[in-house]
Amino acid sequence: MADPWLSAFEAAEAAAARGEVPVGAAIVGPDGRVLATAGNRTEELHDASAHAELLAMREAAAKLGSPRLDGCDLYVTLEPCTMCAGAISLFRIRRLYYSAYDPKGGGVDHGARFFTRPTCHHRPEVYGGIRESEGAELLTRFFGERRG
Amino acid sequence: MADPWLSAFEAAEAAAARGEVPVGAAIVGPDGRVLATAGNRTEELHDASAHAELLAMREAAAKLGSPRLDGCDLYVTLEPCTMCAGAISLFRIRRLYYSAYDPKGGGVDHGARFFTRPTCHHRPEVYGGIRESEGAELLTRFFGERRG
Repeated sequence: MADPWLSAFEAAEAAAARGEVPVGAAIVGPDGRVLATAGNRTEELHDASAHAELLAMREAAAKLGSPRLDGCDLYVTLEPCTMCAGAISLFRIRRLYYSAYDPKGGGVDHGARFFTRPTCHHRPEVYGGIRESEGAELLTRFFGERRG
Repeated sequence: MADPWLSAFEAAEAAAARGEVPVGAAIVGPDGRVLATAGNRTEELHDASAHAELLAMREAAAKLGSPRLDGCDLYVTLEPCTMCAGAISLFRIRRLYYSAYDPKGGGVDHGARFFTRPTCHHRPEVYGGIRESEGAELLTRFFGERRG
């Protein structure tokens, strides 16, 4: 059984190697298996919405043949942004596990805090800050190297 | 020169004909021409993120070969949801024009009000409620027929 955190962190490392912001995500299906894995591809695809979470959810939904991911969980190395928080609700993700907090761009525990709004019609269970230092270090290293 | 509102409303009507929630969107490029048009395709594509706005922005960005739509404007028949508001900011849309207000699901002038948050790093100019009754009637008719 693949470890979803390993899949997510590997996808983040692969994104960094492509020159993309290193964020990785994995979707686990109701049977506990990893259904889809993705890293950021915004530059490669010329698509500002091609965040790891959105790509992984779209791939999982395509595999299941349904726009809803009932009973599926999302693992991601960074707190999702507001766009991805909205998408997580629309795809009806059951549980969201994320690593590093993102005070500047997060939309779950910062900023829009979308899941707390009455316009949010499906709220996942949320577990943030898991393997936090590992998730944060990925980004620190990436931006440090680009600035250095 | 194609009228972006005509394109957006035609895309919404086409979505209704496919059994999708009737929302349509058009992107106008810096030269004033319609670059991309799309209607909702969430059911057809098995993709809960396949909202009209997101599909139109992705198509326009692919045509321009850039993840950013600098100088481009978005026309849409319904107030964007929180996911789409986040994406509008990420794609750097210059001006957002929308028709019907969406108190239950909107993320621009309702709910998350994303563009007012400090975690929003690009704010478009926003013009809501344009041709409001026309935009609202599309949805009322669609849901009325499905319930009837």
